[in-house]
Amino acid sequence: MNTSRRGFLGSAAFGAGGLMSLAAAAEEAAFKPGDGGFGRQANALPPGDKVAYHNPKDVSEMPDFRFSLDGNKPKVTSGGWAKEATVHQFPISKGIAGVHMFLDPGASRELHWHAIAAEWAFVISGRCQTVVLEPSGASEINNFEPGDLWYFAKGHGHSIQTIGDEPCHFILSFDNGAFSEHGTFGITDWIDVTPKEILAMQFGLPKDVFDAFPKGEAYIQSGPILRAADALEAPWPKESTHKFRLLKDNRAVRDFDGGSFRLATVDEFPASHTMSGGLMTLRPGGMRKLHWNVNANEWQYFLKGKGQVAIFGSGGRGKVAEFKPGDVAYIPQGFGHVIRNVGDEDLEIVQTWDNGKFEEIDLDRWVQASPRYLIANNFAGVPESTLVKMKGG
Amino acid sequence: MNTSRRGFLGSAAFGAGGLMSLAAAAEEAAFKPGDGGFGRQANALPPGDKVAYHNPKDVSEMPDFRFSLDGNKPKVTSGGWAKEATVHQFPISKGIAGVHMFLDPGASRELHWHAIAAEWAFVISGRCQTVVLEPSGASEINNFEPGDLWYFAKGHGHSIQTIGDEPCHFILSFDNGAFSEHGTFGITDWIDVTPKEILAMQFGLPKDVFDAFPKGEAYIQSGPILRAADALEAPWPKESTHKFRLLKDNRAVRDFDGGSFRLATVDEFPASHTMSGGLMTLRPGGMRKLHWNVNANEWQYFLKGKGQVAIFGSGGRGKVAEFKPGDVAYIPQGFGHVIRNVGDEDLEIVQTWDNGKFEEIDLDRWVQASPRYLIANNFAGVPESTLVKMKGG
Amino acid sequence: MNTSRRGFLGSAAFGAGGLMSLAAAAEEAAFKPGDGGFGRQANALPPGDKVAYHNPKDVSEMPDFRFSLDGNKPKVTSGGWAKEATVHQFPISKGIAGVHMFLDPGASRELHWHAIAAEWAFVISGRCQTVVLEPSGASEINNFEPGDLWYFAKGHGHSIQTIGDEPCHFILSFDNGAFSEHGTFGITDWIDVTPKEILAMQFGLPKDVFDAFPKGEAYIQSGPILRAADALEAPWPKESTHKFRLLKDNRAVRDFDGGSFRLATVDEFPASHTMSGGLMTLRPGGMRKLHWNVNANEWQYFLKGKGQVAIFGSGGRGKVAEFKPGDVAYIPQGFGHVIRNVGDEDLEIVQTWDNGKFEEIDLDRWVQASPRYLIANNFAGVPESTLVKMKGG
Repeated sequence: MNTSRRGFLGSAAFGAGGLMSLAAAAEEAAFKPGDGGFGRQANALPPGDKVAYHNPKDVSEMPDFRFSLDGNKPKVTSGGWAKEATVHQFPISKGIAGVHMFLDPGASRELHWHAIAAEWAFVISGRCQTVVLEPSGASEINNFEPGDLWYFAKGHGHSIQTIGDEPCHFILSFDNGAFSEHGTFGITDWIDVTPKEILAMQFGLPKDVFDAFPKGEAYIQSGPILRAADALEAPWPKESTHKFRLLKDNRAVRDFDGGSFRLATVDEFPASHTMSGGLMTLRPGGMRKLHWNVNANEWQYFLKGKGQVAIFGSGGRGKVAEFKPGDVAYIPQGFGHVIRNVGDEDLEIVQTWDNGKFEEIDLDRWVQASPRYLIANNFAGVPESTLVKMKGG
Repeated sequence: MNTSRRGFLGSAAFGAGGLMSLAAAAEEAAFKPGDGGFGRQANALPPGDKVAYHNPKDVSEMPDFRFSLDGNKPKVTSGGWAKEATVHQFPISKGIAGVHMFLDPGASRELHWHAIAAEWAFVISGRCQTVVLEPSGASEINNFEPGDLWYFAKGHGHSIQTIGDEPCHFILSFDNGAFSEHGTFGITDWIDVTPKEILAMQFGLPKDVFDAFPKGEAYIQSGPILRAADALEAPWPKESTHKFRLLKDNRAVRDFDGGSFRLATVDEFPASHTMSGGLMTLRPGGMRKLHWNVNANEWQYFLKGKGQVAIFGSGGRGKVAEFKPGDVAYIPQGFGHVIRNVGDEDLEIVQTWDNGKFEEIDLDRWVQASPRYLIANNFAGVPESTLVKMKGG
Repeated sequence: MNTSRRGFLGSAAFGAGGLMSLAAAAEEAAFKPGDGGFGRQANALPPGDKVAYHNPKDVSEMPDFRFSLDGNKPKVTSGGWAKEATVHQFPISKGIAGVHMFLDPGASRELHWHAIAAEWAFVISGRCQTVVLEPSGASEINNFEPGDLWYFAKGHGHSIQTIGDEPCHFILSFDNGAFSEHGTFGITDWIDVTPKEILAMQFGLPKDVFDAFPKGEAYIQSGPILRAADALEAPWPKESTHKFRLLKDNRAVRDFDGGSFRLATVDEFPASHTMSGGLMTLRPGGMRKLHWNVNANEWQYFLKGKGQVAIFGSGGRGKVAEFKPGDVAYIPQGFGHVIRNVGDEDLEIVQTWDNGKFEEIDLDRWVQASPRYLIANNFAGVPESTLVKMKGG
């Protein structure tokens, strides 16, 4: 290796002169090594200009990050309804789609799968049973109560059926903003579009038997009530189960000053390898301080109370919005944000991220971790007493 | 954590009322907790409507999933030809491209690589030798007979040469539908476009030596016959070899009722880490029952016989097509499908998937794994005797 | 498995006849088994045609692969400047963006992060200190001299501050060509766009305190000189540190005939898991022979001397360009290339790749690894003495 530090200093003087005209070269001769060459001359800005050149094409207007999921039109069939927020209705939400689904007593969301997204769920009220089939051929049957979560991987077959005489409703979150719950792969559609002679071979039944099958999609099918005593579970062990008891599992607790937070990441809920999710509660006046998520987009469904969210995007963009129950918020990966309870009761938010590994960085911690001289330089003109306070001193 | 189950029930009543007008709020007062709020009113559908809102923008017409590979125009050079099916000719095939290649006795497919796709091969007839070079600098030399597979990773240098006095032809499959075998990185092109003074430095030869080199691409070059006795192998161990003897390796056997299936996944053929592939044979009247692939697109080349394939897409779309030798089928990830032999002789299909891990789910197994009450609800109106039979009872 | 080799030979004769007309079938009857069927007839090309069909749509004109980074307009703020090359100015560079950044003595590049790219750096001259905060909450503080590297993962908070009374400048490389250093997430912007009542809650300070904060982005902020004695390090162990001493760490040495090469891959510099990078020096007349990178795009910044680069793309495309200090080159994944020193002094190039695992294949080695008969066939018409020399004989 014949490159010395001297070489670098020399090269720096020469180096920055690429594509230099003779006139520029003469002018450059007045610069000291290390000045960085002719580009340095751009320092002579026109009067009033702060920045010589600043036109990053990847910075556009900050898009709307609030949408009323509960205000959207539902898809309604015999046994219930579903409303959705996809990238089609809510353009910012490229990474995550969401659904509010409601099943009557006795109804089932028919056997179906999604080719392009995994499904994460938080049960709001009522009880239900899910059946999921994995490619291994093994199936799990689980019963759910309010506050329980489920996770079904992309492409795995599943169904949901109300247990008991109360309706059941829940929030679904999908790790693909283009996913529409209104266009899934359902078993009644599959049978409907398959030639009857193939169905006859498939099931060893006469062809005309299939005349009695549903025409088109059942989607959410009404029917007799499934009694709790009949709804037997067939659960898997912790390492692989599709169910997580968010409100009952102490591993999920991540309380903070001003609120509580229960979170299931892939560490607590291993099946959920492409998503994290949980429930945040902010007390009146409480705040989840400024932070950003490093590796995932964030999706929020406002369950109760009145919230305010401020987000921050690259290129000096900011936006603030207020949220009521039924609203959703979407915060793109890496965008700074803060959440406040601006109402008089608890604020409850169902939150999901499209990464099983959960990563966030807090502004507080960042300022505290930075040397005093760095913060003083960064905030030139701010009194030292303020900076000491910001650093927690 | 100050959120109780009571909190949820309460929040559900309030929660779904986001963005509610006063009139709507008054109307909602008649709903019981758990009803799901004002969205529930959409249940009052206009007469005749089954679904209030159903316009998923990600559901389009079902595209054609059949293409005649052997009917496409070939690229022909001195030693043979190749026909291809890429996303340009066959728009549905975004994940996988395919080629039918034919080498004369004495020919070689010149040293080349592909920047954007791995290559999987099934030898139909004849014998050939491949040489592959990995980034480690190590090379493997293998000889192939009908029914053998090879796999070369994206970007690895390789070549193919006929052994003996019979021509050799084979099916290639690439894990990128945009890949065109007609535009690869070939050694003759590389030497042709490189300045002669650089070639002289590269090889320590006078510049004018390179006047004798091929102008443009040799592609498949004719030449003297390579005798079997001269075609020495230099094979690697099972853990890393680029060759798999599909018809001779018992680990590949996955026979089923109505046909046989030989499959090499990353488990049996570790080098093949981005693709799985094999040969399916259906006896006359045989059927590969309804199923879908969870994690990969499927590509089929019909080698022999007469087949029928029915596919099922989200949003209630179905399509059926018949296939003759030389045709290819493409089934997008997650799409349901079924394959029948509708001819009088065995149906033989070369199949590949763009994932080394192989995952499929069978409709039969799914119905069997679902509780009786779920199936009864899902197929409301279908006689119980039919459902019992479907469940295999 | 009832498929025999005989079956394949038979199927080949029949198989290639898919979609055959009766006339074609009659004509085909004259072909021997193994001929490959009717496609074979395409061998009868029109006079003068070498290739019957060759229109790969994925082969376009070879784009420019040279751009003058140092000749681009800078973004200038109170403490220094930055010039950038993104996909907006330099369309070929889809995978990697680059920046030349210059900090005055006493300046700091403020606390910031990037949502869409990791940052790799090579220090050209001067000294500086970085502070980086990871999602774990742990921070590292490192001091840098010329020839040192840093790596900050996507989304991790970081800052850079000049040490001592010499300016500091460095080359940054980002693993996303769409990333613009001119539109990052900076702490002054964040505070500027956040409502003051939220800031007051965040830091426990009165609202009006925030009137004294910078309006808009500080970017590179001037300030008092940071003396070396005050710039204390808080380094992490080798397994996780964000700093690599490229010119002092013997593990980086990969010298070759005609030049020296120092490279840090994820093996030598574990933090750098999405990028590799180093410094190549070619002596006058020296050459880095023909090769390609298997798994990554390559980005080059010319630091010193005069270079020539020839690249080779699929479909027989080639381009040659000359490079002066301040120029950058971009070589897409899999494209063949060769670099020559065509000046009178050492040629120094900072190089990066968008993959922590480094993989390249040399043409020399490939020709050497190929059997004699393959090379003779591939280069039909070239004298054997030339081929023996190419194979290193």
